[in-house]
Amino acid sequence: MAATLGELAARFGCELHGNPDVVVGRVGTLSGASSDAVAFLANSLYRAQLASTRAAVVILGPRDRDGCPVASLVHAEPYVIYARIAAFLHPATAVVPGVHASAVVAASARIAPSAEVAAHAVIGPDCTIGADVLVGAGSVLGAKVTIGAATRIAPRVTLLDGVRIGARCIVHPGAVIGADGFGFAPDHGAWQKIPQLGTVVIGDDVEIGANTTIDRGTIDDTVIEEGVKLDNLIQIAHNVRLGAHTIMAGTSGIAGSTKVGKRCMIGGGVLMINGLTICDDVLFTFRSVVTRSVDEPGTYSGVLPAEEAGKWRRNAVRFRKLDEMAQRLADAERQLAKLIATTPKNTDG
Amino acid sequence: MAATLGELAARFGCELHGNPDVVVGRVGTLSGASSDAVAFLANSLYRAQLASTRAAVVILGPRDRDGCPVASLVHAEPYVIYARIAAFLHPATAVVPGVHASAVVAASARIAPSAEVAAHAVIGPDCTIGADVLVGAGSVLGAKVTIGAATRIAPRVTLLDGVRIGARCIVHPGAVIGADGFGFAPDHGAWQKIPQLGTVVIGDDVEIGANTTIDRGTIDDTVIEEGVKLDNLIQIAHNVRLGAHTIMAGTSGIAGSTKVGKRCMIGGGVLMINGLTICDDVLFTFRSVVTRSVDEPGTYSGVLPAEEAGKWRRNAVRFRKLDEMAQRLADAERQLAKLIATTPKNTDG
Amino acid sequence: MAATLGELAARFGCELHGNPDVVVGRVGTLSGASSDAVAFLANSLYRAQLASTRAAVVILGPRDRDGCPVASLVHAEPYVIYARIAAFLHPATAVVPGVHASAVVAASARIAPSAEVAAHAVIGPDCTIGADVLVGAGSVLGAKVTIGAATRIAPRVTLLDGVRIGARCIVHPGAVIGADGFGFAPDHGAWQKIPQLGTVVIGDDVEIGANTTIDRGTIDDTVIEEGVKLDNLIQIAHNVRLGAHTIMAGTSGIAGSTKVGKRCMIGGGVLMINGLTICDDVLFTFRSVVTRSVDEPGTYSGVLPAEEAGKWRRNAVRFRKLDEMAQRLADAERQLAKLIATTPKNTDG
Repeated sequence: MAATLGELAARFGCELHGNPDVVVGRVGTLSGASSDAVAFLANSLYRAQLASTRAAVVILGPRDRDGCPVASLVHAEPYVIYARIAAFLHPATAVVPGVHASAVVAASARIAPSAEVAAHAVIGPDCTIGADVLVGAGSVLGAKVTIGAATRIAPRVTLLDGVRIGARCIVHPGAVIGADGFGFAPDHGAWQKIPQLGTVVIGDDVEIGANTTIDRGTIDDTVIEEGVKLDNLIQIAHNVRLGAHTIMAGTSGIAGSTKVGKRCMIGGGVLMINGLTICDDVLFTFRSVVTRSVDEPGTYSGVLPAEEAGKWRRNAVRFRKLDEMAQRLADAERQLAKLIATTPKNTDG
Repeated sequence: MAATLGELAARFGCELHGNPDVVVGRVGTLSGASSDAVAFLANSLYRAQLASTRAAVVILGPRDRDGCPVASLVHAEPYVIYARIAAFLHPATAVVPGVHASAVVAASARIAPSAEVAAHAVIGPDCTIGADVLVGAGSVLGAKVTIGAATRIAPRVTLLDGVRIGARCIVHPGAVIGADGFGFAPDHGAWQKIPQLGTVVIGDDVEIGANTTIDRGTIDDTVIEEGVKLDNLIQIAHNVRLGAHTIMAGTSGIAGSTKVGKRCMIGGGVLMINGLTICDDVLFTFRSVVTRSVDEPGTYSGVLPAEEAGKWRRNAVRFRKLDEMAQRLADAERQLAKLIATTPKNTDG
Repeated sequence: MAATLGELAARFGCELHGNPDVVVGRVGTLSGASSDAVAFLANSLYRAQLASTRAAVVILGPRDRDGCPVASLVHAEPYVIYARIAAFLHPATAVVPGVHASAVVAASARIAPSAEVAAHAVIGPDCTIGADVLVGAGSVLGAKVTIGAATRIAPRVTLLDGVRIGARCIVHPGAVIGADGFGFAPDHGAWQKIPQLGTVVIGDDVEIGANTTIDRGTIDDTVIEEGVKLDNLIQIAHNVRLGAHTIMAGTSGIAGSTKVGKRCMIGGGVLMINGLTICDDVLFTFRSVVTRSVDEPGTYSGVLPAEEAGKWRRNAVRFRKLDEMAQRLADAERQLAKLIATTPKNTDG
């Protein structure tokens, strides 16, 4: 949709420098924006692109205003304001109330009149679908699934029995929520399945990435608190709890019963083993393997970056003898100390 | 369903301490169980919770019996017995024989009268679906797929041409079995696809996690032997063979043609490269990268745990000079040896 | 299908040694081929199997010809020729033109008469489906999706709004192309979603593995150039660009805005962080973590292989003190140098 710069400034609390009657209809990058577009500068890495932008207006912070060759919307938090203006100019496709003729809906399901159930969706018995919810094409809901208002379930999502999802969530295609946790008792060389009887409870404003899997709890529930954001291809095992506003990048995974605090940031490919407790405000950089509980907020790392293969190999070979090397160093230190203690000073020098 | 303690003791071979007429209807955790529930104590980590449990009865081992404040079902293997009692009290939803009107089933498919084909499932030509099988909503079976008795295919599973699955298996949502293996011949700067002409053969009592992928073989088949348990988001490449009762945790992967023995345990995030042979009874801890064949049963590891970022970085920087450090140590050792050989003893001391 | 050796030699430019009238109908492995099958020898690891093969004919290089006990099709590039002959003898199932009665197709979609839309597929408004395209059962296409001629979309694929796919591509089951990129602005302890307004553009002859995810761009598009091959369970983040003929093995991932050159080879489980630029012709071995841009073609590595757990642990413990060890070595070197400088020579020796 279109708006004037004056409307945007008023609606989003910015200071406008420029003609309030100019009309914009989209967002763009600093380097690629057309003359009807809003760009933004929130990362100093891109400051060099400001001088040559052809955007109609740039959202930026106070200290970048003077360097802006076009109109500007000035705000202390330009990235958040950009996010809001982008959502305003590019609203998500509207939900079209109603159930598609090809959807299969159990008679006992309660679906709000304002909700949309798309083609080939399947809604099981005793489900409750809130107002303005979208259930995408081909998604399958088991029995007794509850979805809060204005949540959007993309196409081809699976929500299994008893899963409860809050309001204003987004679940991307291929996500599987509520499959059995992975629990087996060793039984004379084979494995006896442990029934997975809990479910998954997800708070408001949660986003869940494509093909991410969140398993149901064994007896109690797996819990994802409000505001959590999960990227694609993430594995959340049974009885995990993720604290509010924690964010996880793609291909990471958390093993059974680990509890993660609020506002944690978990990089791509991180793996946490089972049974840990991670306090609030912890950041794990990409590909870390977390093997111990953490009770101190801060940043934790655990990856060795790739290098040219020959150089890597020489160091990796040495790593395989690191314990021996440490013992040799200790031996050398002992010999050296003994030598220092027993050697006469060279009084000639 | 409900049962008396006397019934449970008799059916599952436990020694009952308590009133045999008490009725229970569910399982619960030691700390959370209500007074109609069965709890269990199988891991000494939870022993402290025993004293305050409000469960009707606790399944436990002989040495924990005296510390139990409520009734007890005593057995030498309390975890396996718990698994069986939980399955007895909480049976899986019954299969409802018949083909849903919205399913699309090829005329040549043979479906046992006791099998259920759910809404929007698609069954290709010449498939054979055994007795008591469930094919979940939206699942797609290609041509000539065979499914053994009592196997449960969850919603939104894909089984491609020729895949054969044994009896009593469970396949979770989003799993893809029988997609093409990843094979290409280099062809003057581009890639020529190698046709993937084998299929996937899966034994009895196998469980396959959500969004896990198992590729078809190139010429011969990919084989998953009986009793194998695979967690979510696992990648099994073409022509892999997994031995009976091997278990793999989530986000692990095995590259082409690697053969894994029986009763192996493969931790989360483990990666095995192609062409290896792993003997029976090998355990790889989480996130190990397996680059060599293993012919000795035992435990193998390969991960450096995350630490506070500053500390990690200091060590990681040193790792990049580990080869140089090893050479410096060798130099120091040589100099030291020479010095010891050529230094007069301090005879004053 | 069947062919004579003479036909194969003529069609694929091989030198035939053997009876041109022999008929073959399939491919097989050197060790397992039946007498109506074509085998191949392209990897010297398998040379020992040549002497005992029972294949009708073996495709091999000039220097293996004399050791072949059966007929041979000699070519300088036996693996590529094998790929072509295998595809010729085992053609993919033919596309059956037409839209299945259970598919849901928007009135505004343009579907080539020669294309097949399978059962329960969903095609959104303004899609364009090219000649000879297959859209598999249960696949869902959003609005304005474009698919080039002869591309095969497997069952249960999701292509979201605006995605454009070239000709002769293969997309395997469960792949999700065009889900939102993972972008959020920190907003006073919570996260503000950044609208993801770009799409995904995929060139010709691209193959995309099962359950792989490719996110749409934030403003500009995510781009996969022609001839790229992606294995299963790969995560490609928003605004990534993959150069032509680059190949990635399973469970690897690339974070936002990273640009990878042409003809790169990316091993299984590799992770690249965001914002990097990788030049053409770079090979990353399995499980490497790429944290810096690369402007020099070559091979890069970054993994420590698993070892017997006790040995691994001893070295891993030392790694945690590597910085201290390096400082101790430097101290010892200093003391040693001082000692050498100040010690009288033993003139007795």
